[in-house]
Amino acid sequence: MTSEAFQDFYPDDFAQCYGCGRLNAQGLQLKTRWEDEAAGVTITRFTPRAEHTAVPGFVYGGLIASLIDCSGTGSAAGAAYRAAGRRPGAGAPFRFVTGSLKVSYLRPTPLGPELEIRCRVEEVKGRKITLSATLSAAGEVCATGEVVALQIPENFGS
Amino acid sequence: MTSEAFQDFYPDDFAQCYGCGRLNAQGLQLKTRWEDEAAGVTITRFTPRAEHTAVPGFVYGGLIASLIDCSGTGSAAGAAYRAAGRRPGAGAPFRFVTGSLKVSYLRPTPLGPELEIRCRVEEVKGRKITLSATLSAAGEVCATGEVVALQIPENFGS
Repeated sequence: MTSEAFQDFYPDDFAQCYGCGRLNAQGLQLKTRWEDEAAGVTITRFTPRAEHTAVPGFVYGGLIASLIDCSGTGSAAGAAYRAAGRRPGAGAPFRFVTGSLKVSYLRPTPLGPELEIRCRVEEVKGRKITLSATLSAAGEVCATGEVVALQIPENFGS
Repeated sequence: MTSEAFQDFYPDDFAQCYGCGRLNAQGLQLKTRWEDEAAGVTITRFTPRAEHTAVPGFVYGGLIASLIDCSGTGSAAGAAYRAAGRRPGAGAPFRFVTGSLKVSYLRPTPLGPELEIRCRVEEVKGRKITLSATLSAAGEVCATGEVVALQIPENFGS
């Protein structure tokens, strides 16, 4: 079942992100949605471009980190809507930034297949949401990750 | 004192990396060199482009992860040359991939200033090199990281 993407409901000011902003024409325009809302699992799909190479034939690790990062903050927004009992886009928006990111590269990720990033909401604690992630190519998990996402404070950047 | 960049000595097959490959025209073309070789500290500089936005005015976290990632693997190559008592480019090349990457985002990184990534070689243990990193903008540390870099095995990708 396909649900709406969380990023489609970011306000314009939060839709400039290189990873997942719908208004960033140069960016990756990632879309994250529930794969299994009851289980707190989301899915993000992305097919790397030819330039996203590490060594020939394999995906750049920085891109893998970026995919896990934006999947995590997007999933955190979804989790916040879920915790508030609202559908994405209903009422005031939620937007998260990354507090910390860990990626373990288990095996080289082949360049070519569409990548699937699954995020699981592990903990919602006030403004802090912890998520785990797997990144798979052709059904094989190539990397795992953990994202701590923090809801953007009112004084962000000041 | 400016020393040569480690990435300038990668063989062509390893110079395609999106982050630091001199042959990747679409990539970031990062250059990492010793800032203080005796102390095992390297420096990498990069000025983000306008599209490298997270929210307006601030740098995308996935780019920050990418900068720390490639600074780490580049610094690992430098550390391997140093451990072998060779100058970069003298003898068989060293090339590393990322085993794991951790990034802590301490504060929003302003989009505009040149970023400085300093990596310190923490441990060289066989084919595994552990490095710590700081990322600064205008003299202020905005993120820290840890990279475990693994020397590419002969059977990489098989």
